[in-house]
Amino acid sequence: MPELRKEPISGRWVIIASERAERPTDFKITHQPTNNNFCPFCEGNEDKTPPEIIAYREKGTKTNTRGWKVRVVPNKFPALKIEGKQNKRGEGIYDMMNGIGIHEVIIESPKHILSLTALSNGSVEDVLWSYRDRLLDLKKDKRFVYGLLFKNVGVTAGASLEHSHSQLIVTPIVPQLVTNEMIHAETFFKHNDRCIFCDMIQQEITTGSRIVTSTDNFIAFTPFASRFPFEIWILPKAHDSHFENQQKYEIKGLANILKNTLIKLESALDFPPYNFIIHSTPFYINKSGYFHWHIEIIPRLTNIAGFEWGTGFYINPMSPEKAAEFLRKK
Amino acid sequence: MPELRKEPISGRWVIIASERAERPTDFKITHQPTNNNFCPFCEGNEDKTPPEIIAYREKGTKTNTRGWKVRVVPNKFPALKIEGKQNKRGEGIYDMMNGIGIHEVIIESPKHILSLTALSNGSVEDVLWSYRDRLLDLKKDKRFVYGLLFKNVGVTAGASLEHSHSQLIVTPIVPQLVTNEMIHAETFFKHNDRCIFCDMIQQEITTGSRIVTSTDNFIAFTPFASRFPFEIWILPKAHDSHFENQQKYEIKGLANILKNTLIKLESALDFPPYNFIIHSTPFYINKSGYFHWHIEIIPRLTNIAGFEWGTGFYINPMSPEKAAEFLRKK
Repeated sequence: MPELRKEPISGRWVIIASERAERPTDFKITHQPTNNNFCPFCEGNEDKTPPEIIAYREKGTKTNTRGWKVRVVPNKFPALKIEGKQNKRGEGIYDMMNGIGIHEVIIESPKHILSLTALSNGSVEDVLWSYRDRLLDLKKDKRFVYGLLFKNVGVTAGASLEHSHSQLIVTPIVPQLVTNEMIHAETFFKHNDRCIFCDMIQQEITTGSRIVTSTDNFIAFTPFASRFPFEIWILPKAHDSHFENQQKYEIKGLANILKNTLIKLESALDFPPYNFIIHSTPFYINKSGYFHWHIEIIPRLTNIAGFEWGTGFYINPMSPEKAAEFLRKK
Repeated sequence: MPELRKEPISGRWVIIASERAERPTDFKITHQPTNNNFCPFCEGNEDKTPPEIIAYREKGTKTNTRGWKVRVVPNKFPALKIEGKQNKRGEGIYDMMNGIGIHEVIIESPKHILSLTALSNGSVEDVLWSYRDRLLDLKKDKRFVYGLLFKNVGVTAGASLEHSHSQLIVTPIVPQLVTNEMIHAETFFKHNDRCIFCDMIQQEITTGSRIVTSTDNFIAFTPFASRFPFEIWILPKAHDSHFENQQKYEIKGLANILKNTLIKLESALDFPPYNFIIHSTPFYINKSGYFHWHIEIIPRLTNIAGFEWGTGFYINPMSPEKAAEFLRKK
């Protein structure tokens, strides 16, 4: 019997129709390299990207030359432009503003690696530190309210270059899905005086069947109402509203669980295309008792059809309990 | 300069970054046939589908044999099951219920056609009548609150068979995107005593630049905050909350504008994969002054990446005004 499940934070309902697929191998898609010739992200090609914003470098090396470990550059084809005013305005019943924002690329290694998992734990830490550094810097700009960190791996997941990289988009509005999560979390907090994410972590630990991996400070599990096969969330166990609040020991713990979780995913699904997205609290909120930052990992295994687009009501052919069981064994 | 635009009904924001693509040919994807051998939807293969629920037939022909024009059958691999009780229940902080519902397939022609546009106008009318007939029948079942009619064309858009067909999924809950649209529309109505869709139609007629085609009773335009290149909405000009309320002359007019719009789309983009979805008012509302049924057509030209999934904040590389201009010329 398929089940309907409601994701309590966003309020979205999901059909868990696990009879439609029995094994993870039903979803295997080959990882397609996208660029076999020239890679602008490789060491030595620093002049092929816009000039770097920050880079973690060996002592004595010059900006925009060799000798870096992580390098952050503006996106060459940005979705939003940094210069200008918002110019919020109406047009009859419509609202609009200029597309002011930031669009940066985090190049995760000087070497031509295809996955974050090819890095040492220390290098994954560096990548996460660069996320934090950029957020702390950009949240000073009063025009912006939200920083979205995400990663596309594989053509199907939207990656246009295969060299392992992440992206940061900073926007003058809070994206709808985040607002939606915040509204639901705030409502829960008003009724219960508790963070709904903290409750969820507690319940997942007690239940156990959806846990992928758990460490001192973090937990990775397949959400109760997973929209997609092998969807995984990673959360800090202690309540924290902002990703950029992480301290050194937390970044270290996060690098560890993130890499391990991705290794499990790559091993289970033979290097699937995927996205991960960090959901954090908007810049203008200094500290939130009800919103709890987290990472959502979404393997891109199934075609999204009219039903999903038309309704926000996803059909997931794999139960999260089965997915977690499979991932735990990897 | 890219623009941020807000879709006033769902509340979603979109980046219109039209510099990223200049011509519709930037999006051309070839229509891939999915099944070259055996087709269970073709005339003569009636025993290869579950028994028909309704069919428009030549007089004297028997059910589940040749002689039909439109045939509605249960989906062989339904996402929801018709038998059983909902059994709504909680599991800690989570809510769930059984996946009770209806999942039917509307086979639009006995011939192996790949598009609704291969049908005569009269035959398109028959298809729309079958939608209406099924909704009117199924809304009598008190377990269900919503009927979602949609169509997937092409592998990329989620079609598993190429023979032209639509689907109907009837659910015990109202899908989130529809709820969201209804909340925004209701709020607008409370403030203005007007339907926001009616206002939108008025403004689109006045503006003109986003109109694809307009007839006595219907209008097709590219929405102000289109999420996707060449996204098109079709609405009845006179306020009406429910698709299934359509009268004979309206179904005739709708068949006409729907077919013409799809011909333009197919001609402009060389038979792109696409979805269309009918947004109508839930069954339990008899008549709504604030919600206005409509069809959303979504060509599937761009890869959806982490940014969109993580935020509900779409990046559309084609301005709707350019798209409409191009479509008008077809």
